[in-house]
Amino acid sequence: MMKNNLKRIEDLTVTIVGLGVIGAAFAQSFKEIGIKTVYGIDIDEETIKKAEEKNMINKGFLETREPLEKSDFVVITLYPNLMKSFFVNNINYFKENAIITDVVGIKEKIIGDIDPIIEENNKKNGKNIDFIFGHPMAGREKRGIDFADNRVFKGANYIIIKDKKNKKENLELLSEIVKCMGFKKVSFLTAQEHDEIIAFTSQLTHAIAVSLVNSDSEKYDTNRFIGDSYRDLTRIAKINEDLWAELFMGNKKNLLKMIQQFERELDIIKDALNNNDLGTLKEKFIISTKRREKID
Amino acid sequence: MMKNNLKRIEDLTVTIVGLGVIGAAFAQSFKEIGIKTVYGIDIDEETIKKAEEKNMINKGFLETREPLEKSDFVVITLYPNLMKSFFVNNINYFKENAIITDVVGIKEKIIGDIDPIIEENNKKNGKNIDFIFGHPMAGREKRGIDFADNRVFKGANYIIIKDKKNKKENLELLSEIVKCMGFKKVSFLTAQEHDEIIAFTSQLTHAIAVSLVNSDSEKYDTNRFIGDSYRDLTRIAKINEDLWAELFMGNKKNLLKMIQQFERELDIIKDALNNNDLGTLKEKFIISTKRREKID
Repeated sequence: MMKNNLKRIEDLTVTIVGLGVIGAAFAQSFKEIGIKTVYGIDIDEETIKKAEEKNMINKGFLETREPLEKSDFVVITLYPNLMKSFFVNNINYFKENAIITDVVGIKEKIIGDIDPIIEENNKKNGKNIDFIFGHPMAGREKRGIDFADNRVFKGANYIIIKDKKNKKENLELLSEIVKCMGFKKVSFLTAQEHDEIIAFTSQLTHAIAVSLVNSDSEKYDTNRFIGDSYRDLTRIAKINEDLWAELFMGNKKNLLKMIQQFERELDIIKDALNNNDLGTLKEKFIISTKRREKID
Repeated sequence: MMKNNLKRIEDLTVTIVGLGVIGAAFAQSFKEIGIKTVYGIDIDEETIKKAEEKNMINKGFLETREPLEKSDFVVITLYPNLMKSFFVNNINYFKENAIITDVVGIKEKIIGDIDPIIEENNKKNGKNIDFIFGHPMAGREKRGIDFADNRVFKGANYIIIKDKKNKKENLELLSEIVKCMGFKKVSFLTAQEHDEIIAFTSQLTHAIAVSLVNSDSEKYDTNRFIGDSYRDLTRIAKINEDLWAELFMGNKKNLLKMIQQFERELDIIKDALNNNDLGTLKEKFIISTKRREKID
């Protein structure tokens, strides 16, 4: 079964839409796991040239029609707000039974945008394309193909949004592809579950890092007075403002709830300080230590 | 000058009080930079044995008198709340003109505890010992000699508390020793300045990491849904509860102020979310990105 699928994976014709830092890393991985035909679509000619020169893809395209018509498997790595117009403009080009996936960090909104287009098209022309929404939990602060590095995928988590309309064998195939790419734990969630847990592990952490850096009074030359703790907590304050403003706003209900939960814990520390309550501080530190020890 | 001092550094007789994760790393560095005589004091016989076997020290002692009487330079790496009693019990053993330093992460309180003891003793017996308070901005989450690793010092920051009673040549010597150990930027601050900036870069970051981990509702198996951002922001939630409860409480005025400043920034993000204000989010992300780019 595994062997058959691996054979099948190698023989898929694959297109990546968007050869940015994540799209190009997918390309690297697809080549690495032996996929024979990897196409790339990008709006930037220079990027396509680089991807071809670095042998990340077999061929790059500015136009979408030719590669989409040939592809069994398509990975869309566009910004969330470009997804809908991409589908409106390209829905007719997809191959019959094509499997499509994405990498967007919020799911309810994006699925609400895309699913009706797919369904309407499937009804109309019976092409039966299967969009399986996904989220690789790995990224980089920098943008663009020059910073693509698929080593960030090794050992990382992957979330697949499982919907009853997705074909079981396609869900299995996607899971197998990402495991071949080096992702370690693949989980299946609903869009609602995804957005709730991701508001905590991803959007809240970015809100905190940004607020921490921005709360610096800059009275001192901070760089001289930091240790690894400040470096670690602020690394993601270097942030792609267009992408993350969208992600925050597209998941605001969950994010606001997570900020509130976080502030409640911070209040307990404040109260303990104000009341000289060493016991509560120690208790909170013991809990956080035990919880953090369970994290890889 | 540099050469003469280096010669002088090698010939110093040095004692480290407390061979925990930081004390033992100091011992490693002292050996590495060529200091010929490094003694260690610890209350745990097993620890002393390990330090001797690993050639971190020339000789270890359970008793304090002999090594202190011989030492030109003494590094105290005890917990803050053990510092005062250590000085009360051992003040008479220090050698004439001895230079003493510490590694405690808060300064006003500890200096207030220790300085009167030193001054009284210097007046009484004219031994002229010079305590220069210091803070290496490097550490590890784990405790004990088994986790000592002086590579954490390489490239790290060091703060020296400069007081008018400290001898200029001794301040220079300490600065030179820590630079030889691999620390990169050595800064001189008052105790008040130290505690203010450290409340921001160190204690606030730990308060945030602990609160983040503790605000996890644990509705999901968090470990399956994290990326590097959550890993980075929570690494220091694994925390030595005894040490950090003391550090928080000993610097509570500054820490409460820093938490307030941080919460003000988080409020701006909350307001932007509630008001669908994409512009403010982007603006905040651009500011944090620019600031973070300036950090090593």
